[in-house]
Amino acid sequence: MNFCPNCSARVAFRIPEGDSLPRHICDACNTIHYKNPLTVVGAVPEWEDRVLLCKRAIEPRAGFWTLPAGFMENGETVGQGAKRETLEEANARIELLDMFTVLSVAHVNQVHIFYRARLLDLDFSPGTESLEVQLFREDEIPWDDLSFRTVSTTLRHYFADRKANAFRLHTDDISPPK
Amino acid sequence: MNFCPNCSARVAFRIPEGDSLPRHICDACNTIHYKNPLTVVGAVPEWEDRVLLCKRAIEPRAGFWTLPAGFMENGETVGQGAKRETLEEANARIELLDMFTVLSVAHVNQVHIFYRARLLDLDFSPGTESLEVQLFREDEIPWDDLSFRTVSTTLRHYFADRKANAFRLHTDDISPPK
Repeated sequence: MNFCPNCSARVAFRIPEGDSLPRHICDACNTIHYKNPLTVVGAVPEWEDRVLLCKRAIEPRAGFWTLPAGFMENGETVGQGAKRETLEEANARIELLDMFTVLSVAHVNQVHIFYRARLLDLDFSPGTESLEVQLFREDEIPWDDLSFRTVSTTLRHYFADRKANAFRLHTDDISPPK
Repeated sequence: MNFCPNCSARVAFRIPEGDSLPRHICDACNTIHYKNPLTVVGAVPEWEDRVLLCKRAIEPRAGFWTLPAGFMENGETVGQGAKRETLEEANARIELLDMFTVLSVAHVNQVHIFYRARLLDLDFSPGTESLEVQLFREDEIPWDDLSFRTVSTTLRHYFADRKANAFRLHTDDISPPK
């Protein structure tokens, strides 16, 4: 941020009085502009013993497989966002089950939240951000070609919990890549 | 947003190509500026049969009681944010237990996440954003003087689950006030 989105004056970057972190500050209109983490919302859509993955058509990680997920929008709930992203990326309709993973990715200022979900029908197809959409059994998951560690982490928990017949919430912190 | 924080040109507000929602767009430097929900992180700090509340010194809702909570910062995990807010508002150190509530407040573009937590000692005091900090038994909770519905919702779930001796995650949507 170089300029104040409110009044267009050049902003400073310093710790406001009474605060502990540097912020973008406009001394012309006296506004502090905060930057906060983004929430990514998504789903693990299941159909019998298979889960739905999308091959990404867009960067980052184009050509890699992902669970349907994307940035949560203003005006929606976490669950509405997970359903919207599944519809946008896979043209798939789901019924939400329990919230399944809440993964902090502090080094990129994100929190990723995935619901378990049931596909309502097999009428799915690639949305504009996907190249392919496909159901995978556990032994078919393209583990080496997954897009993000939040996706692989969520899928690992999913299959482990399914084996144990005990789904529960997982709240992991994803550390920076080595 | 009136001006581009990147180049200071006046921004337009329209639906970008391939998108479905209007965004602030800078046609001078070709940047789309997204607005996304904020995450509030907090804790239910318990000590034996009591929980720690803070009387807010600042707006909104100054003078009302809240669980320690605040906006999640870039660079931290959800859990780190909950501990930081508890330290800032109540000068209290906690050990996190399970994530307890994830509450979507779509009409104000927020998600509130609370952990259950154990107070590590009784050495707490009001931080700069609090007027008082106090432990409350269930029958002492100032239900009519709580600050936010996410706080009352979290406390109601907490005491109900404690009675049932079965804490679990609650993922509610908080609807607009009538």
